[in-house]
Amino acid sequence: MIKVAINGYGTIGKRVADAVAAQPDMEVVGVSKTRPSGEAYIANERGYPLYIADIEKKPVFEQAGIAVAGDVEEMLKKCDIVVDATPGGVGKANKAIYELFNVKAIWQGGEKHEVAGISFNSSCNYEDAYGADFVRVVSCNTTGLCRIIHLADEAYGVKSVFSTMVRRGSDPGGIKKGPVDAIVLNPVTIPSHHGPDVNTVLPTIDIVTTAMIVPTTFMHMHVIRMELAREASRDGVLDLIRKHPRIGIVKGASGITSTAELRELASDMNRPRGDLWESCVYEDSVSVGTNNELYLFQAIHQEADVVVENVDAIRAMMKAADTAEESIKMTNEALGFSAI
Amino acid sequence: MIKVAINGYGTIGKRVADAVAAQPDMEVVGVSKTRPSGEAYIANERGYPLYIADIEKKPVFEQAGIAVAGDVEEMLKKCDIVVDATPGGVGKANKAIYELFNVKAIWQGGEKHEVAGISFNSSCNYEDAYGADFVRVVSCNTTGLCRIIHLADEAYGVKSVFSTMVRRGSDPGGIKKGPVDAIVLNPVTIPSHHGPDVNTVLPTIDIVTTAMIVPTTFMHMHVIRMELAREASRDGVLDLIRKHPRIGIVKGASGITSTAELRELASDMNRPRGDLWESCVYEDSVSVGTNNELYLFQAIHQEADVVVENVDAIRAMMKAADTAEESIKMTNEALGFSAI
Amino acid sequence: MIKVAINGYGTIGKRVADAVAAQPDMEVVGVSKTRPSGEAYIANERGYPLYIADIEKKPVFEQAGIAVAGDVEEMLKKCDIVVDATPGGVGKANKAIYELFNVKAIWQGGEKHEVAGISFNSSCNYEDAYGADFVRVVSCNTTGLCRIIHLADEAYGVKSVFSTMVRRGSDPGGIKKGPVDAIVLNPVTIPSHHGPDVNTVLPTIDIVTTAMIVPTTFMHMHVIRMELAREASRDGVLDLIRKHPRIGIVKGASGITSTAELRELASDMNRPRGDLWESCVYEDSVSVGTNNELYLFQAIHQEADVVVENVDAIRAMMKAADTAEESIKMTNEALGFSAI
Amino acid sequence: MIKVAINGYGTIGKRVADAVAAQPDMEVVGVSKTRPSGEAYIANERGYPLYIADIEKKPVFEQAGIAVAGDVEEMLKKCDIVVDATPGGVGKANKAIYELFNVKAIWQGGEKHEVAGISFNSSCNYEDAYGADFVRVVSCNTTGLCRIIHLADEAYGVKSVFSTMVRRGSDPGGIKKGPVDAIVLNPVTIPSHHGPDVNTVLPTIDIVTTAMIVPTTFMHMHVIRMELAREASRDGVLDLIRKHPRIGIVKGASGITSTAELRELASDMNRPRGDLWESCVYEDSVSVGTNNELYLFQAIHQEADVVVENVDAIRAMMKAADTAEESIKMTNEALGFSAI
Ligand SMILES: NC(=O)c1ccc[n+]([C@@H]2O[C@H](COP(=O)([O-])OP(=O)(O)OC[C@H]3O[C@@H](n4cnc5c(N)ncnc54)[C@H](O)[C@@H]3O)[C@@H](O)[C@H]2O)c1
Ligand SMILES: NC(=O)c1ccc[n+]([C@@H]2O[C@H](COP(=O)([O-])OP(=O)(O)OC[C@H]3O[C@@H](n4cnc5c(N)ncnc54)[C@H](O)[C@@H]3O)[C@@H](O)[C@H]2O)c1
Ligand SMILES: NC(=O)c1ccc[n+]([C@@H]2O[C@H](COP(=O)([O-])OP(=O)(O)OC[C@H]3O[C@@H](n4cnc5c(N)ncnc54)[C@H](O)[C@@H]3O)[C@@H](O)[C@H]2O)c1
Ligand SMILES: NC(=O)c1ccc[n+]([C@@H]2O[C@H](COP(=O)([O-])OP(=O)(O)OC[C@H]3O[C@@H](n4cnc5c(N)ncnc54)[C@H](O)[C@@H]3O)[C@@H](O)[C@H]2O)c1
Repeated sequence: MIKVAINGYGTIGKRVADAVAAQPDMEVVGVSKTRPSGEAYIANERGYPLYIADIEKKPVFEQAGIAVAGDVEEMLKKCDIVVDATPGGVGKANKAIYELFNVKAIWQGGEKHEVAGISFNSSCNYEDAYGADFVRVVSCNTTGLCRIIHLADEAYGVKSVFSTMVRRGSDPGGIKKGPVDAIVLNPVTIPSHHGPDVNTVLPTIDIVTTAMIVPTTFMHMHVIRMELAREASRDGVLDLIRKHPRIGIVKGASGITSTAELRELASDMNRPRGDLWESCVYEDSVSVGTNNELYLFQAIHQEADVVVENVDAIRAMMKAADTAEESIKMTNEALGFSAI
Repeated sequence: MIKVAINGYGTIGKRVADAVAAQPDMEVVGVSKTRPSGEAYIANERGYPLYIADIEKKPVFEQAGIAVAGDVEEMLKKCDIVVDATPGGVGKANKAIYELFNVKAIWQGGEKHEVAGISFNSSCNYEDAYGADFVRVVSCNTTGLCRIIHLADEAYGVKSVFSTMVRRGSDPGGIKKGPVDAIVLNPVTIPSHHGPDVNTVLPTIDIVTTAMIVPTTFMHMHVIRMELAREASRDGVLDLIRKHPRIGIVKGASGITSTAELRELASDMNRPRGDLWESCVYEDSVSVGTNNELYLFQAIHQEADVVVENVDAIRAMMKAADTAEESIKMTNEALGFSAI
Repeated sequence: MIKVAINGYGTIGKRVADAVAAQPDMEVVGVSKTRPSGEAYIANERGYPLYIADIEKKPVFEQAGIAVAGDVEEMLKKCDIVVDATPGGVGKANKAIYELFNVKAIWQGGEKHEVAGISFNSSCNYEDAYGADFVRVVSCNTTGLCRIIHLADEAYGVKSVFSTMVRRGSDPGGIKKGPVDAIVLNPVTIPSHHGPDVNTVLPTIDIVTTAMIVPTTFMHMHVIRMELAREASRDGVLDLIRKHPRIGIVKGASGITSTAELRELASDMNRPRGDLWESCVYEDSVSVGTNNELYLFQAIHQEADVVVENVDAIRAMMKAADTAEESIKMTNEALGFSAI
Repeated sequence: MIKVAINGYGTIGKRVADAVAAQPDMEVVGVSKTRPSGEAYIANERGYPLYIADIEKKPVFEQAGIAVAGDVEEMLKKCDIVVDATPGGVGKANKAIYELFNVKAIWQGGEKHEVAGISFNSSCNYEDAYGADFVRVVSCNTTGLCRIIHLADEAYGVKSVFSTMVRRGSDPGGIKKGPVDAIVLNPVTIPSHHGPDVNTVLPTIDIVTTAMIVPTTFMHMHVIRMELAREASRDGVLDLIRKHPRIGIVKGASGITSTAELRELASDMNRPRGDLWESCVYEDSVSVGTNNELYLFQAIHQEADVVVENVDAIRAMMKAADTAEESIKMTNEALGFSAI
């Protein structure tokens, strides 16, 4: 059993913990929090030993009826590998302690590529992470772009990509971040930094991205235009997507035309937390122009798509599965997940 | 086994179907839809026979890969009781056909009291529905008001109630209804119609309500002020709430101060669809003034609180449980539900 | 003086009325409403004779203290030209009566091209409307696209355009339309109908568009990618925009990165209703790729950009100005409008 | 001429500057900013000398084409009185420098009562500020509560007040603050701090308030319930409101039922920035219960209602008008403002 610790039991961390706990070859040896919160109670309920960043706060937790197992250092002693899911920018500072305790570590997309030197997406570059000590799972948006671009590139060759990402302003459980009523260019400059981030996984892709933030919580929406090198057809592309274990299709017949209806469907399917681990391509949007330009919309569940990637990253780094296919299959099956 | 049909498999209907299917003494003999949709696929997946309002549309469903069992009349032939969860105002027109097929029927809060003559909340007036043919389960807001007012009334006597309801503009899966950026008085006039609706269940309560709609999807929020006849204490009120099977407490130590964080918690608890069947009283808000005025905030999950009430209404009407306590216990246990 | 009637005194109509009233060569002879409302009081205050669609409702208006001048037919008798700003789809049915009363007519973008046979944007095809009886001013989005594409096309030649439009869900004064929390593909299919609509004004442009709706009220946002035929530079493009009378530049130094801050600026500038009649290109977004692809973001104030186009259309149809330049100059000066 | 400086030219400061500039007995000698922004350009355009907090940033402003007159200390040398409209909590620290430069000062509601020792609302306690050196104009919400409570108290005697404030999450020009999709209790505890804040102006009023934040930008909404000591009638109350120079009535016949439509009306009226300096009571909401409980809804334009109060505070402190009536009349007339 691979002993996994999750440092930072928040939006991403709590999902990674549950996904790890569901795997036959992994166990959660601890999760960490900084403050009492609804999530801390959940950690207790799930039976995940709860460690805290600052042990002096132990009485505060206990007064709230939350059991504390120790501090983060103790957690690190117990694990083979740590998934760092602290807020963006915080994780970097933890590298020293991970080295000190000699544990492998995975960071999230809120950290820079340099923190690990290897940026990861299981469908694209599983082998790069094989046996590695430090890996960064790219952000939710980059994950979504990498999956579909790599798929198209393998099949048809991708000459260039232009994508606009319309991003959710806040996660559904957030109450502080806005905007309330605005479309915010983030960044104003074109291209945005998302293209270069794709290049940390797929270095040869020619990509220009633009991004904005809007007042919604459920998912990001990507508009993608790719110039393909070889002839493609709409049906061919849809077939490829259908076979991909991490990209799903939003059927035209479902009548679903939005992010909200899509999350409603996931919720109706009894997915835990209504999570969509797959990229969701709208069937009716897929079209191929006369010069082999491929167009499509895909919705990305920001809280979920990277979760399964973290599980695969663990396997790659621990050499617990030799190929991406093998790990992806194990991960998906353990979650009862087959793409919509 | 009580044979239950659900006419109108939408926001409320799909939840009632799952709750009924979970009961040891009930089974879902059919659900109905008017158009192919994400929900129709779910009905098939769950194994609920899917009936359609207009049988001429059968080919449209089948082309979308959705199996159809027949028309609504055939569904009515198979059931002892039908839960009508068609959109507000539509249900009334179905009464004639329910009478024709000689089935008992339950309507939702979108219909007027007169459609059934009995308005129902299991914690308040279970006995009124005992053996009845037609019952209306009151709306989500009225359900939330009835539960807490009746509890306070039994314990302390309620001299008067003043409540403001801040309502969600649209359900999370909705994309058409607004507002986008407005506070809408609905109605502008004071008092609103919600007070008289409470009186259909609790006829003697002196209540004034006001209501508005805001751009949010997750839950309604109620501010309640009750003048109590007998002396009350904050701790006493909290104790009463803790014992109530359908009212939960949002712990101060959880740090939760909003509707969004509360739904996040329900989602983390793996509640199906993140549903909160209970009214959710914010612990830190409960306070008692010098003249025995009780103040509190409670959040109401509009899509969920009436679901368990529908299950109890079925039992009352079918005389399948003699008391509210018995039915509530069965309903809650079958769902694995104990209030937060 | 050109006698102008405005049929449909709503979001667009009330702005056109004020813009017409400000012109030295035009006067408002009447505006029309169907129901008493805040806007009806404003018409009275401004001194615009108020006509009503259904004269039987006169008492309802008068009881509300709103003076009524007569019915729409009487209004049509008094005017040379009517601007139809009734809700999308309603205007078409009015054509017969305009023909009957022998008045020239302008429709808005909510009507199909066929209603008039000429679709108009003053910077692009003023001459097509010269002396015409029926003209359609294209929608706010199409107006925004036409202005910038035509500008680039004249200067550099436009080989192809790809644009994504992120549209506001509701106008700020609206309370019914959503979405509250969703990104809605509208339409799901790619390309959207906006490209062909651009072609009604600029028939030779090769354009693919995609569109979605988000929960905001202030403005639409366009991401535009154009392949240019001839070499272009960022500075060259910015210079062209600076000289355009209907396209403004959102200065980088202003720190403005959103639609909301932009409307705040217009409001601070004391523009009536905070209106931005110009397309607003974000200076920092303008960039030119290695293959002469031009990228930029522009914000479009949906309620305002077509207003000045309507004024120019009146002049063209009435032969009151011989060239676009002349009319645009008159319109802008009368409004005290010079692009940001 | 009273020489007025505005320290902090943001949402409130820019409005106070324009209102001061419109007064016959006052002039704006300077406004201050910390960073280049859209508002800094506006200050230049209006001809308000622009001072900056940190003079080392002068080149940054000048590079952006914004003229700088000097630093804040120089501004203070030129004025008789300073209106501090820096962000909440910042203003307090400025007290020392105001004392040093021997200028009178006004703070806003984001500061505590203690900063000035006198909390002000011109309709309630003008005389308390007469000749004073330091005054705090209470917050937008407290201003709204004070106006109506004092009016009712003078006419009927107010025995108790219970009010719920549904507050906007962000100002319309804001892009950072949320929530996006939540109702946030702020605070969770009942009563909120707004009641005691009313008591800084009206010390004897018995008041309990509750407050929450919702995802909207335009206005706050107050639900108010007052127990009156003496018999009141709906018409009597409406008459009183009609005569009040700072409370307006939203006519039932206007069809306006929301905050958004109300701001649209103000915008249509050509109010600068669409500002509603008056509290806006919804005519149809005003009702009186059998025990003389007065109920009403009022909308409060958070950015505007305190602006006119600042102008009156200046006159009181400078002894430029002897009574509230006199100052209010001057202020309103100079702005062309009569309540809706
Ligand atoms: N939320 C998303 O949509 C999303 C998507 C993909 C990637 N990411 C990335 O995942 C990472 C985590 O983001 P998140 O949204 O889950 O954040 P979050 O704020 O929801 O959770 C962070 C958790 O870390 C804990 N924490 C904070 N400081 C800590 C410390 N010093 N030590 C230990 N724990 C600490 C907090 O208690 C919290 O539970 C970031 O890099 C982010 O960019 C987030
Ligand atoms: N959504 C809520 O928050 C909520 C809460 C409490 C009570 N209610 C009440 O529950 C009832 C249902 O509301 P909902 O929100 O579930 O509506 P919904 O629109 O989500 O679902 C209604 C369903 O009825 C089906 N339908 C429509 N017309 C039909 C017909 N003629 N015959 C059969 N089926 C038909 C539709 O296909 C749809 O699936 C209403 O009375 C409503 O007022 C709703
Ligand atoms: N609102 C926008 O952002 C926008 C932008 C560009 C173009 N348009 C187009 O402008 C047109 C008007 O749109 P709007 O947003 O101003 O609509 P609106 O609903 O704000 O106003 C329409 C007005 O027409 C009146 N009306 C309705 N039926 C009528 C009838 N039969 N006869 C006379 N008057 C009638 C209504 O009272 C209302 O005042 C539509 O074609 C729309 O597509 C709208
Ligand atoms: N915005 C509202 O709705 C509202 C309503 C009533 C009262 N208030 C109160 O008014 C005050 C100002 O709020 P606001 O909303 O106008 O804030 P804001 O952030 O819009 O404006 C504050 C301005 O102060 C400037 N500033 C910041 N630090 C400064 C410093 N050290 N020295 C000089 N200038 C500085 C900023 O550049 C900015 O222009 C606060 O006390 C607030 O609580 C605000």
